[in-house]
Order: sequence, then structure tokens, then C-alpha cells
Amino acid sequence: MHKKLFIPGPVEVRKEVLAQMSKPMIGHRSKEASELQRRISDNLRKLFYTNSEILLSTTSGSGLMEGAIRCCTAKRAAVFSVGAFGKRWYEMALCNNVPADIFEVEMGKAIRPNQVEDVLSTGKYDLVAVTHNETSTGVMNPIKEIGAVIKKYPDVVFIVDTVSSAAGTKIEVDDWGIDICLTSTQKALGLPPGMALCTFSNKAKERAEKVKNRGFYLDLLALYKYIKKKDYQYPSTPSISHMYALDYQLNYILNEEGLENRFARHIEMANIVREWAKKYFELFPEEGYLSNTLTTVKNTRGINVAELNKELGKRGFQISNGYGDIKEKTFRIAHMADCTVLEVNELLKNINDILGLN
Amino acid sequence: MHKKLFIPGPVEVRKEVLAQMSKPMIGHRSKEASELQRRISDNLRKLFYTNSEILLSTTSGSGLMEGAIRCCTAKRAAVFSVGAFGKRWYEMALCNNVPADIFEVEMGKAIRPNQVEDVLSTGKYDLVAVTHNETSTGVMNPIKEIGAVIKKYPDVVFIVDTVSSAAGTKIEVDDWGIDICLTSTQKALGLPPGMALCTFSNKAKERAEKVKNRGFYLDLLALYKYIKKKDYQYPSTPSISHMYALDYQLNYILNEEGLENRFARHIEMANIVREWAKKYFELFPEEGYLSNTLTTVKNTRGINVAELNKELGKRGFQISNGYGDIKEKTFRIAHMADCTVLEVNELLKNINDILGLN
Repeated sequence: MHKKLFIPGPVEVRKEVLAQMSKPMIGHRSKEASELQRRISDNLRKLFYTNSEILLSTTSGSGLMEGAIRCCTAKRAAVFSVGAFGKRWYEMALCNNVPADIFEVEMGKAIRPNQVEDVLSTGKYDLVAVTHNETSTGVMNPIKEIGAVIKKYPDVVFIVDTVSSAAGTKIEVDDWGIDICLTSTQKALGLPPGMALCTFSNKAKERAEKVKNRGFYLDLLALYKYIKKKDYQYPSTPSISHMYALDYQLNYILNEEGLENRFARHIEMANIVREWAKKYFELFPEEGYLSNTLTTVKNTRGINVAELNKELGKRGFQISNGYGDIKEKTFRIAHMADCTVLEVNELLKNINDILGLN
Repeated sequence: MHKKLFIPGPVEVRKEVLAQMSKPMIGHRSKEASELQRRISDNLRKLFYTNSEILLSTTSGSGLMEGAIRCCTAKRAAVFSVGAFGKRWYEMALCNNVPADIFEVEMGKAIRPNQVEDVLSTGKYDLVAVTHNETSTGVMNPIKEIGAVIKKYPDVVFIVDTVSSAAGTKIEVDDWGIDICLTSTQKALGLPPGMALCTFSNKAKERAEKVKNRGFYLDLLALYKYIKKKDYQYPSTPSISHMYALDYQLNYILNEEGLENRFARHIEMANIVREWAKKYFELFPEEGYLSNTLTTVKNTRGINVAELNKELGKRGFQISNGYGDIKEKTFRIAHMADCTVLEVNELLKNINDILGLN
């Protein structure tokens, strides 16, 4: 039996989108490929409220995270981490010999703009990396406010991991001063995993031009130069199937559902899950910084999460256990992509039923 | 109108395989994901005649090429190049600060084992990188014979790019002494582009353990350790759709068509195209080193290749122009994956018809 996925990626994908994955191949050096890739870039600019160029990468989000921190740090990177995916960015810097420091907050807390101000005022850093929506803790960092601080430091490149938030909550890339805003297909965009994408500002490009040792496959500057020269074609063969699906889904998001409706639906679903969590458990993240796309619930009742998920599986649902160290101490319900209010309510009803909650 | 692809990737993909790309998602941390990925690895071992571990990478073949040369060169890499894709390997070494030298032969010629012997006898190198089937020139290098030379140097890791040959011609990884044999999905395997895979010997693993600065996403040792620890699951979310299709196609190749039949069909198709090319044009690569999966034809009649392809397009076919510097001076016909003798004959008949050849 297929389990409807309420996990923070891969998400449940609409049938119409899945059907796009089965379309016959075209040459990646063809005019059709250029048109497809140009159209995707144009539509992603709308999704991200940006005039920056768009880069596509046949990798998971991690591929672009590594590319961004490696290609755009000339002096030293400041990684602000609120959980597992923030730490990953720091690890990526280290294993590429990129000078970096990590600034962590307690799990469940968000980064405050004044912390960023304190760090940047030392003058040591020329790049700030932040996770927008931490998939392990369910914290959504205040990127707009952090961006306002960074704007005071014109030499600092601002890179943001929006893997589990983009297309599920409004991210105004240009207004917030984000130089590289990256995500992948299998979260709030509502596609299968296998492709990542990012915005790439002129400032990011100019920085990368000063960085040597950017590697090959994850070299964002090389991607940028290639698509400019070759009319949106990529140096290596990209996943054409994902491009079909992405193209189709962007048209749906922008022209059928509409961005504002999509964001409002995510807030509505988030509110339902939060209210439920507060009624029967507690929220893990601090109030005021709750993710709109997934809710991390503190397991105050000491339920057996693995067992709950097993029972849910029999009914055709799947949620996530806590991540890493907070496994069983928390559990996660994702409410992102094309999942509906009705489906969220159905899931919660089933959880209540299994746990005997009223 | 859909054009049947006779280009060296992406290739024409069977409908049944494309259908696999549309299957609903499963969690990448599920038992089903482990089983799927373990079964793929087991079957790939049969395809490659190896006992080595298998690594899957959500990248194009270039991603794994970079990972292989970066992770497994401790001293200095010797890249033997017969065209564009050999040069790419050298470029990847340079932009990762991996010490490397390139040894090139004239376009259309193959590497000779004694050249490799001469280079290795200097004692300067601990890795040899070779392209098996050069997609630009249509040359197939004598990997078995080169492997026999390398076996005399137990400290040398042998990495081979079989992107456009694997699953179209027999490659006996263990017998030939290949440490990393890599390919991608969109060539003779007959799948859409978007995933790469390789064999990873114990020797390659031990070498990688001595190399620092292996990066993150393309770190083959990290992939290896993770799948060993997590029952064939991967550190980042992989392209599950490609895994469905790969699993399905491997079962077809091994248990329905059969490996020997598949390789024989490729030779039969290659022979037809070679005979045709020799009758009306000339072969670009030297005899004795002809690729079994694609034929590069010398444009001795000075035809307008772009124009020919345009006319073919109207009839529902697509071939490739020459690559890079030998564009229009050559053209390429791929005969790989699941394309049939009948289809190859149909293509050639149409070319003859357009060019007025008899």
C-alpha cells in the first residue's frame, strides 16, 4: 500500500506532475532544451521575487550548498546553525579547505539579527550562510531581518538554504538581499528528488570570480558562464525528466494556484498542526519562529514514535521521527507542497485515533 | 513530432522504462529504499562482472568523474586522453588542486598499453584515468590491455570512464583490474539522464582514506561509508525516480534480454553503421579501436551535417554533429541502449534518401 508522505521530503507528488517524468527524451543540446530551461529560469525568478540569474543543478540540495559556500568564500565564512543542516554547511566548508566558523544556537531556537551583527562587526567574514527552515527542528529563521543586517556590509555574500521552505512560504530574494537562495525539488515545490536550483546574484558572481579552486561539477560560476554562452544549456547532461516536471509545476504554482494562495494554504495547514500539537503535546521550536512547512512536536507524552508511524503506515500515512539526537524525543509532521487542509486533518484524526486522544 | 534519438545520450528510452519514472515517492530513509538500492547494487555488480561495492550518485557522469580523480589521487594522476572527455578529466584535476599530467594522442587514435607503461615506469603516478569510449571521436580504448600494464604497479589506482559504453559492451571490471568504473544512466543503459554510478574497489577505498580534502557531495569514501552503515541508503536524498527506472531496466537487461545478447546486438548494430560509413564516407577512428556504441563518421563528402539533421528531424530522427573542433568535419551516429537493428537500418535508409546515396 502506498503511504501518503507527511515527511519533510520526499513529499507526495501530484499524479499530473509524476506523469511529466515519463515524457520521452530530447537532446540536451537542442533548441527545445534551451527553451525549456529558459522558461524554468524565468518562472523561478517570479517564485523567488528576484532579477538574479537562476542555476539548475542535477544534484540534491546538498550539492548546491557545497557549491555556494566553496565558490563564494574568499576570506572566511560565518555559518549560523540552528540544527543538522546548518552543521552540514560548516562541514562542507571544512572538507573543501574553506576557512569558516560556526555559530550555533540551542536546538529549537532561531538566529537573532543582533548575533549576526556581532559576528560581522569583527570584519573577519565575507560570507554568511544560514538555513531558512531547519528541517530537523522546525525553526524558521528571520531571513529578512538578518538580510537587513547584512546589507550594512557590502562585501558580505549572503547565502540561504531554503530547501524545505521555498515555494511553501514567501521568500523575497532581492528585497531581503539574498545572493544565493537555494532549494531542491522534493520539498515544497512538490516534485520528486533529483534536482536542485538557486538564484545567483551579480555580487555572488563577482565574488566567485575571485575564488580559485571552485571545483568542476559544483562550480556555480562555470554553470553561470555556460548558460549565458549556450542559451541556458548546461555543461553536463541534466535530468531532463525533472526539468519537464519542474516546468509543469511552476506553471501550476504561478498560474493556476497562484503564489499568494499557495503561501496562504501553507500557513493554514501549519496553523492546524500547531494547534493540534499544542493541544496534545508541545511545540519543539520557540514561538515566533515556527516553520510554515513542517512542525516539530515535542514528545511530551512519551509515545513510541516508531510504533505510531508503523500504525499510520497500515492506514496509508507516513510522518517523520525526530532527526538525529532528538529522535523519539520529537516527531515531525510536514505540511508542504500540494498537500491539502483536508489531508492534514485526515492525518491528525488518524493519529488521534491510534493514540486514543480526544 | 518526437525525434528518435541516435545521439550519444540522452538516448531513446523504452516506454516501460519511462513509466517507472512516474511511480509515487517513498521515503529515502525507508526499508523499501534500502531494498531498492541494495537490489540495484547487486545487479550492477553482475553487469560489471565485479565483486566491488557499487556507488550511486545523483549527478551526471561528470560528477563521479570529478569525485573519482579528486578522492583517489594521493600523489599524482596520469590522465590519458583521446578527446574531449579525457581533457575534461584533466581539467577536473586542475580545478581541485589535484596534481596531474595529461597524455594525449591525436584525435581518432587510441591509447596504446606501452604508452601507459612508459608513463608509469617513471614512478611519478599513483592513479591512471582513461576514457573507455570517447564520445567525441568514437574511439574505444583497449582497457583490458591497459589494465594488464597497470596490474604491474600495485600502488596505481585505475579509474575508467565508461559513460558511453557500459551496458553496451562487455566490461569485466575485476578481470581487467579497474578500481573505479563509472557510467551514467542516459547512454547504453537506456534510461533518462540524471544519475551516475560506479564500482568502487577496496583499493580505491584504501586510497581515498589517505586523501584529505575530498569534498562533501562527491566524496566517494563518504558515500561508501554511509551505505555500509545505513543499509544502502545515501547521505543526501537521491533521485528515487531514476532508481525505480534503473532497477526495472537492470532486471530487463540481465533477465530478459541477457547480457551476452545485449552486447551481441550492439556489435551487430555497430557493424551495420560501420559498413555504411565505409561505403559512403570514411570512419574517423582508427580501425581496431572502433566503438561498439557509436560511430564517428568522417565527412568526406562535405555534406552540410546541420542541414542533414534538420531534414532527418522532419522524418522523426536525430543524429549528432561532430563534437567541438570536429563539428561538420565529422558526424556521429549512436547505436546504443535499446535501439534495434531494424531502427538503425531505417535511419540509414532515410539518410541515404536525403543525401541521394544509393
